[in-house]
Amino acid sequence: VKHIAESTVRRLSLYLRFLEDYRRQGLETISSGDLAALGGTTSAQVRKDLSFFGSFGTRGLGYSVNALAHRIREILGLEREWRVIIVGAGKIGGALAQYNGFGERGFRVVGIYDVDPARIGQSLDGVVVKDQRDLDADLKVLKSDIVLIAVPPEAAQPLVDRVTRAGIRAVLNFAPTPLHAPAGVTLRSVDMALELEILSYALASTKP
Amino acid sequence: VKHIAESTVRRLSLYLRFLEDYRRQGLETISSGDLAALGGTTSAQVRKDLSFFGSFGTRGLGYSVNALAHRIREILGLEREWRVIIVGAGKIGGALAQYNGFGERGFRVVGIYDVDPARIGQSLDGVVVKDQRDLDADLKVLKSDIVLIAVPPEAAQPLVDRVTRAGIRAVLNFAPTPLHAPAGVTLRSVDMALELEILSYALASTKP
Repeated sequence: VKHIAESTVRRLSLYLRFLEDYRRQGLETISSGDLAALGGTTSAQVRKDLSFFGSFGTRGLGYSVNALAHRIREILGLEREWRVIIVGAGKIGGALAQYNGFGERGFRVVGIYDVDPARIGQSLDGVVVKDQRDLDADLKVLKSDIVLIAVPPEAAQPLVDRVTRAGIRAVLNFAPTPLHAPAGVTLRSVDMALELEILSYALASTKP
Repeated sequence: VKHIAESTVRRLSLYLRFLEDYRRQGLETISSGDLAALGGTTSAQVRKDLSFFGSFGTRGLGYSVNALAHRIREILGLEREWRVIIVGAGKIGGALAQYNGFGERGFRVVGIYDVDPARIGQSLDGVVVKDQRDLDADLKVLKSDIVLIAVPPEAAQPLVDRVTRAGIRAVLNFAPTPLHAPAGVTLRSVDMALELEILSYALASTKP
């Protein structure tokens, strides 16, 4: 598989959402111009992004919505199921466990873990919170692909170290702290506190 | 107020977390080396970031934890309260309404809105969900500063247009769709579906 830049992956992900909208509306073809307008980019960029993966378009007719959606799902790895483990069953972990968007995209939550006895044993959207001591053993048994980290900041880096040692290669972090992962592991962070501080700074530093 | 690059705002936000950790531990000074190590950057970068706002350090002694934390909070606009409105009281909006991290940083949720009669009237962490028809009038009455968007993708852009017309200058979007805001408005997005797709692509395109 060729390596694609993150900015391209981002655009493919966007194109896919538009294609799915078109499909829901019963439309069979889409032009590069439509995709560009929806995605806030240019037709040339769309054609460049898509030509990278082969030839889909028919001159004058545009792209087949179904064929292109299928191909992008293949490229992004969305044609298969990914098994997700959530560590931390507090407010963020709990909200993640109940987030419908995962299932729609083929991400299946197969385990939720916490250290707090008050949380262990609770059921979150059908998945029972387990004791975090069982995590290492379960990571292999559950054939998990992705770990979502929703633990306090000070517990996050040891957890990354632990799950990557167990073979996990994809981590999405929600703890508000910078983390490091070994080479070959993809680590992304969603930091709501930081986003709010960027907004706060923008408001504080400009006049209305 | 001088304009600071987003990458600098990001680092200041990180330094602030480390300073708060130090304060909790009862430590009174911190060196640029410590801040650099914690933040994964260099001492020279730390000194450059901080010198931009005046002189805090004492050679050989480091920075005063309290004074520096206070100054960074001032710069980031965190010494005052920001009034936040959440639009969309579904799973994401509901989780946001109950997220403790807001209050800790001085972000106060003053209103939650939805269009669904089943949700209107429900209480989320003490704030009652109101009818979205009241939003325009309330934006001014509530003196709101920041709007969090947690509505379905197709409703998101009209909502941005609506709240920015009403004078809102800071928007944090959780709808998985690209949005545009007029000049002078800071619009940020947290897109969990996209983050997952980036992980999915990384897993699909590399061998274990």
